[in-house]
Amino acid sequence: MRRTLLAITLASLFALPVLADQTRPTPTTKELLAQSKPQEWRTPAPANLLDMKLPGGHVLIELAPDFTPLHAANIRTLVHEHYFDGLAIVRVQDNFVTQWDDPAADDEDKAHVKPLGEAKATLPPEFTRAIDPKLEWTPLPDGDVYAKEVGFSEGFPVARDPGHGREWIAHCYGTVGVARDVGPQTGNGSALYAIIGQAPRGLDRNLAVAGRVIEGMELLSALPRGPVPMGFYTDKSMRVPIESVRLAADLPAAERPKVEVLRTDSPTFARLVEAKRNRRDAFYTQPAGAIDLCSIGIPSRMIK
Amino acid sequence: MRRTLLAITLASLFALPVLADQTRPTPTTKELLAQSKPQEWRTPAPANLLDMKLPGGHVLIELAPDFTPLHAANIRTLVHEHYFDGLAIVRVQDNFVTQWDDPAADDEDKAHVKPLGEAKATLPPEFTRAIDPKLEWTPLPDGDVYAKEVGFSEGFPVARDPGHGREWIAHCYGTVGVARDVGPQTGNGSALYAIIGQAPRGLDRNLAVAGRVIEGMELLSALPRGPVPMGFYTDKSMRVPIESVRLAADLPAAERPKVEVLRTDSPTFARLVEAKRNRRDAFYTQPAGAIDLCSIGIPSRMIK
Repeated sequence: MRRTLLAITLASLFALPVLADQTRPTPTTKELLAQSKPQEWRTPAPANLLDMKLPGGHVLIELAPDFTPLHAANIRTLVHEHYFDGLAIVRVQDNFVTQWDDPAADDEDKAHVKPLGEAKATLPPEFTRAIDPKLEWTPLPDGDVYAKEVGFSEGFPVARDPGHGREWIAHCYGTVGVARDVGPQTGNGSALYAIIGQAPRGLDRNLAVAGRVIEGMELLSALPRGPVPMGFYTDKSMRVPIESVRLAADLPAAERPKVEVLRTDSPTFARLVEAKRNRRDAFYTQPAGAIDLCSIGIPSRMIK
Repeated sequence: MRRTLLAITLASLFALPVLADQTRPTPTTKELLAQSKPQEWRTPAPANLLDMKLPGGHVLIELAPDFTPLHAANIRTLVHEHYFDGLAIVRVQDNFVTQWDDPAADDEDKAHVKPLGEAKATLPPEFTRAIDPKLEWTPLPDGDVYAKEVGFSEGFPVARDPGHGREWIAHCYGTVGVARDVGPQTGNGSALYAIIGQAPRGLDRNLAVAGRVIEGMELLSALPRGPVPMGFYTDKSMRVPIESVRLAADLPAAERPKVEVLRTDSPTFARLVEAKRNRRDAFYTQPAGAIDLCSIGIPSRMIK
């Protein structure tokens, strides 16, 4: 029997306790989600849900207007104008980011750069926001290397500096950020990136976070890496064309992506976090006893 | 000017300070490595250097016999027997692991399972080891969510529990671990995985770490993801064949991979860590002030 079952507990079938101090193994994600209640799931607002169609399928992104309202508005304008249709993924840097924008902006001759239309060319940074007690806040108990407090707010992984009264979405796997030039006001949402590796938390508070990929990450994370150092597809044939990006609110109801996200303030989410903090079963005999903000995936599901 | 330059500082050309309290921007990795001295680089011992040839190129892995000596010995035996030649990458789970082993072990009919030859079928776990003050230890100053102490030892990212006198290689991006069945002694090195996403530190102390990928990660990280939940290539045509795995020590000197790794106890590595902890330049105006163990890449270079 050499069958290898790393992380077997993700789909665990084992029900026998292996340690004296426990009566049942930690429930799996599958088991916990199966016990969730319908009201623990939310449907992203159509005004915040982007559907990016790539040759391989659909990437769904939820905007975060509670954290970056001006960027959300500008991205909605760009998408409404079909700005991204025909643009491309231009950069994939291993263990860092996948970036999409207007490839013509990379050309020496800027004659074919797509105009931004009604969208603004520059925006205030929105790198952090004032902590607002009216927003949902689900803290994590295990601390963080980078911030005083971390947890989830309105469905996003968030870090906080209570001393300065600021909070921001953390650059975790799947976070979608606003690429920019050197100046802090040079980002406008026409160039976006998604984190595809170890959370580069040094980007926190230096870039605006537009939102988060909720479905389809593998369409961004499994692409060929571009040449070092920054992963730009200098061979233009590597670029991945964007067929379209649509805002759910701009689509007839029947054509909107039918997706739900587990509420991060729900009892089931709390159970998932605890199960991950202290997984103990036939395979995992040494519970971690802690969990990092960016190691907690937020479950989502497509509705038939 | 909409040119997007996220992480421009990786190849920064900017020399103008942007804040009053600094006189020079944080040096880039490229600049720091350019100033490194030859003796700050080491050549992995040929007995610890694996060269895995895939259709797309070579993956170089350094074994970690200081931490998992019995596993290193068994893997050397398997490689010496050409055990891995003709096996395959059988699983890629997004934001988790890429795994390679004998696909025939997945078949219901085990008739074609490759024998282990002189290698052992089971090994003591080696999930942690006693802290040995004779090993190099370069601590990090910013703490860790999972362990009391973290740092680098003998070129590997390591976590420690001083209270119990134990240490272990952390499951960071690029860490190579030993897949196993449910029992803790069922791993033998014939099935291995590499971490390709956010560090799954919950695996620490539950699995043996064989070593670390030092070159070629993009050949493991950019592969198509298999179907959820665990990413196994149930469509066998997706499997990536392993052409060969060789131990440098088994090759004539002229055929060994010529690679060097920056010493983690070198002044240049310390400068790299500090530059990452407190990057401040024209682009990064808000230094992180901290760095996570698994966010520190260990530079390597191929020698012509």
